[in-house]
Formats: sequence, C-alpha cells, structure tokens
Amino acid sequence: MAKNSDRRTEPVRLRELLQAPPGEGVDLALYDADATPAGPGDKAAGLAATAAMAAPLAGLQERLYAAATAGDRRRLLLVLQGMDTSGKGGTIKHVIGHFNPSGCRIKAFKAPTPEERDHHFLWRIMRELPHSGEIGIFDRSHYEDVLIARVRGLAPRERIRRRYGEINGFERALAEDGVTFVKVFLHISYEEQRKRLLRRLDNPDKHWKFQPDDIEARELWPAYRKAYELALKRCSTADAPWYIVPADRKWYRNWAVSRLLLEHLEELDPQYPGTDLDLERYRKMLLEGA
Amino acid sequence: MAKNSDRRTEPVRLRELLQAPPGEGVDLALYDADATPAGPGDKAAGLAATAAMAAPLAGLQERLYAAATAGDRRRLLLVLQGMDTSGKGGTIKHVIGHFNPSGCRIKAFKAPTPEERDHHFLWRIMRELPHSGEIGIFDRSHYEDVLIARVRGLAPRERIRRRYGEINGFERALAEDGVTFVKVFLHISYEEQRKRLLRRLDNPDKHWKFQPDDIEARELWPAYRKAYELALKRCSTADAPWYIVPADRKWYRNWAVSRLLLEHLEELDPQYPGTDLDLERYRKMLLEGA
Repeated sequence: MAKNSDRRTEPVRLRELLQAPPGEGVDLALYDADATPAGPGDKAAGLAATAAMAAPLAGLQERLYAAATAGDRRRLLLVLQGMDTSGKGGTIKHVIGHFNPSGCRIKAFKAPTPEERDHHFLWRIMRELPHSGEIGIFDRSHYEDVLIARVRGLAPRERIRRRYGEINGFERALAEDGVTFVKVFLHISYEEQRKRLLRRLDNPDKHWKFQPDDIEARELWPAYRKAYELALKRCSTADAPWYIVPADRKWYRNWAVSRLLLEHLEELDPQYPGTDLDLERYRKMLLEGA
Repeated sequence: MAKNSDRRTEPVRLRELLQAPPGEGVDLALYDADATPAGPGDKAAGLAATAAMAAPLAGLQERLYAAATAGDRRRLLLVLQGMDTSGKGGTIKHVIGHFNPSGCRIKAFKAPTPEERDHHFLWRIMRELPHSGEIGIFDRSHYEDVLIARVRGLAPRERIRRRYGEINGFERALAEDGVTFVKVFLHISYEEQRKRLLRRLDNPDKHWKFQPDDIEARELWPAYRKAYELALKRCSTADAPWYIVPADRKWYRNWAVSRLLLEHLEELDPQYPGTDLDLERYRKMLLEGA
C-alpha cells in the first residue's frame, strides 16, 4: 500500500513515445500521420499548450547560451526532415520563433553546389554546426545524402551504403563533444500532401512555392518512404535517436516539436554561470560616480 | 480652399524624423536619450503599437523572400550600434522575433580574430551580408573599426581616417546592388547605462553578462561619443543614412526600430512572383490521383 501511494503520476515523456527504437526496422505504414500521441485534446488546447512552452523554452535557451560563456560546450541541434510540404519551414517559423533569434543558427540545405559536391558529403554539414550555447536548426541535412541520393541514384549504391555508418560515427563524435541531437522526421500522409499542394495551387500568394517537381516526386513516394525507413532504422542510435512526429495536423506537429525541445533542454538543465569578480567593488564604483 | 481640403494628414515618417542629416555635424548632447519622438503616448500604447506591427512586418518579409526566388535582388540590412547596455541584443530579441527566423541572417561581431585582423576590415563584413530576400541583422558591424578602433587607437589614425570613405563606397556599392540599409544608433544616456549596469550586478541571472571592462569603458564615454558623432556625420549618406534612436526607454526603442523597418519594407513593396506554369494542368494531375 505504501508502495502504491508513493508512486507519482509521471507525465509522459514524448521522446520515449515518438522515438524510432534504435536498431529496429520501421514500417511507416504502421504510423498514423494524423495521430496526436500524448497530445492535447484538440487544436485550441494544442495552440494554448504550445504557447505556454514559449517562456520556458526561451528561459532554457538563455541559460544554455549563458553557460557557454563560462566554458560549457553543450549545444542542441534540431534536424528536420520530411517529404515536401511536411512543414519543415512552418515548424521553424512557429517553434523556433519562440527563441531569441540571436542564439539560433538556422541552415536550409539545398541541392549541393559544385564546391560542396567536390567534398565529402559531411563537409558542408560540419561548417554549419551550432557553436556552444547555440540552438542549431537544419532544414534538411546530411540525411539528404541517403534519401534523395538513394532515390535518384545520385551516388553509387555502395557509397550510399557506407554513409549510414559514417553518419553514425559523425553524430556520435559530435554527441561526445556536447551536441544534443533532436532529429525529427515530419511524417505526413500521401493524401495530406495532395491537399497541401492543391492549396498552393489555389492561392496566388503561394504560387512561388510551387514546383512541378513537387508532383513528379509523388510518383517516387514509395521509394522515398523506403529510403526514410532505412535511415530511421540504421541511424536512430542511442547517441542521436530519430523521432517520428505525425505531421498531418500542424498544431500537433508544433506542439510535439516544442515538447521534444523542452524535454531535451530540461534534461540538459544548463545553469547561469557564477562569477569570481568582486561585484561589490564594481557596484561601489558605479554608485560613487563611475 | 479646395487645395486645403485636398491635403491628407500624412502620418509622420519616422525615418525623416530620426535621420542624421547627411553631411551635417551631430552633437549628441542635443539629442535626448529619454525622448519618444512621434511615439505612442506611453509604454502600454507603445507595446500595443509594436505588437500590431508584427503581422505586417512578417507579411512583408515573406514577400521579400518570395520575390527573391524570382530574381529580385533586394534585401535589407539592419545595423545596430550603440554603447554597452544600449540594447542591441534586446532589440534583436524583440524586433527580429516578429520575423520568420529562416529569412533572417544575424551576426554579432566580436573583437576580430587573428584571421580577420589579417584582412582588410571589410573582409569579415562581406562574408556575413544577407542574401537576396533576406533580412540581415548586424549586432555591431564595420563601424567598430571607426569607433573602438579610434578610441583605443587600434590602428594608425591615418588609416582610420581613410575608413570613413571606404565605408561610404562599400555601402553605396551594396545599395546599388539591392541592399537597403537601416543603420540604427541606439542612443542611451550615461545615467541610464549606470542604472542598467547596477541592475546586472543586482541580478545573479545577469552576472554572466557583466564585464569589468563595462565600467572601465565609462571613463572613455566622451571619446566614444565623439567617435559616434564623427561616424554619424561622415557616414550618414543618402544611400545609407544613420538613424538616431533614443533608447533609454526600451519600449520606445523597440517601437521605433520596428517602425523604421516597416517604413523601409513598405517602400520596397516586394511582390509575390507570378508563375508561367500551367497550374490548371497540375491541379488536374493532383485531383486525378497523382
């Protein structure tokens, strides 16, 4: 009885719920893109719950940044991957908008330039990593080199096969150096993508976002899904797990990514550094006219 | 009479009010750091007016970004300068926080590294300029090379004298290439800085921001003011004027910088690009099962 009454109701840790289990196969057909696991009951509640995380997120970011000024090497890197229209840009706007922009380092990776192609695929990634105390955000990432590269055959199959291990080694080394990875796969359904593309076509203010390639890529949907499943299987590691976030509902997506960031930052628990300075002396100097 | 009734009440253009007149001398003693020129009546009204600018600012930013995807080379660069504690960081947090962070390129310039010192002083600036469609934000800038460099004698006086002209040439070339400059001098008073430094000393969460140098630099206040006056006089040009923003009141500072950005973006009036694509065809493809 005593045992029972001692038990607290722990809030669900979303990271455990959404994590792609390291080393296990992933069948995305079993993941409902419209689901809202552990989420608020509806959109209104979701928006409110996300807004309520803004202040704690900003506070933790400031502490992370402050700690770095005293030598704390830790930093966080949010990696966003997902099919076209899955909401990578929207996530950055809504979730990262809560942070102080000075402490964020955002990079959208496009098709590699000739210079980038001349280097190992991790070369351009290395250059864009967050500094200590910063929150890095990758809109696409080194995973493109095992996703589109695989689907479109942009590199020999044998080289692509090697990349999974190279990615794991790279991420492990960074994790040991203080990088906390939050790798998020924004999971949308084929039907939801159709709706979003149609909405782009129906709104003149969105035409600039529309590419014919968006529709042609839909024929490759099964190949992309397979490539994502492989990446999620081979590169969800203890050092840097993948999270599968159902993204058909934007409010849930924003809530879930905010919540994942909050859980990781709370676990990091960065602290304002103290000071060895004789502050009383400086206070006196100021009060006496300096 | 007809003439009179035709006249509309034009809202005050803040940029004209705050602009350091090109070519004219500036005596900062004549500028009240506590003033609120053309501003809302009080803090509450100021916060509300600033919040009301968030949506139009974000909308204009999106159009600027969209236009660039169709070849529009325009971009905006906010340059923030001011004494320690004048609120450069706070301005970025509050004002730039309204924008989509993906379209912003923020750079805080610190003391130059050995590599940077090995180059011309504009070398490191060139590398951090906003791309087309982006909003760049410089927390300190190339002006440090005629401010602290002058006050601390970090370069021969003759070389510093040359820099004003080099800066003007550099900014003119960029302006002709599509860069809209919004150069803001955050003007705080000696007394207000004292209060802010004391507040840092009184709050353990702010101790990490405190540097003994902050107090020692106060002895150099007159030399810094003189250096600012020179920069404002020599580098407030038609291509890239300086704005003197009274910054003792944070709410006014945030309102004024937001307002300056809004006025410039409205004048740029970027447009969503149209499309030559046969959208009806793609709509059909999607509706018929693609």
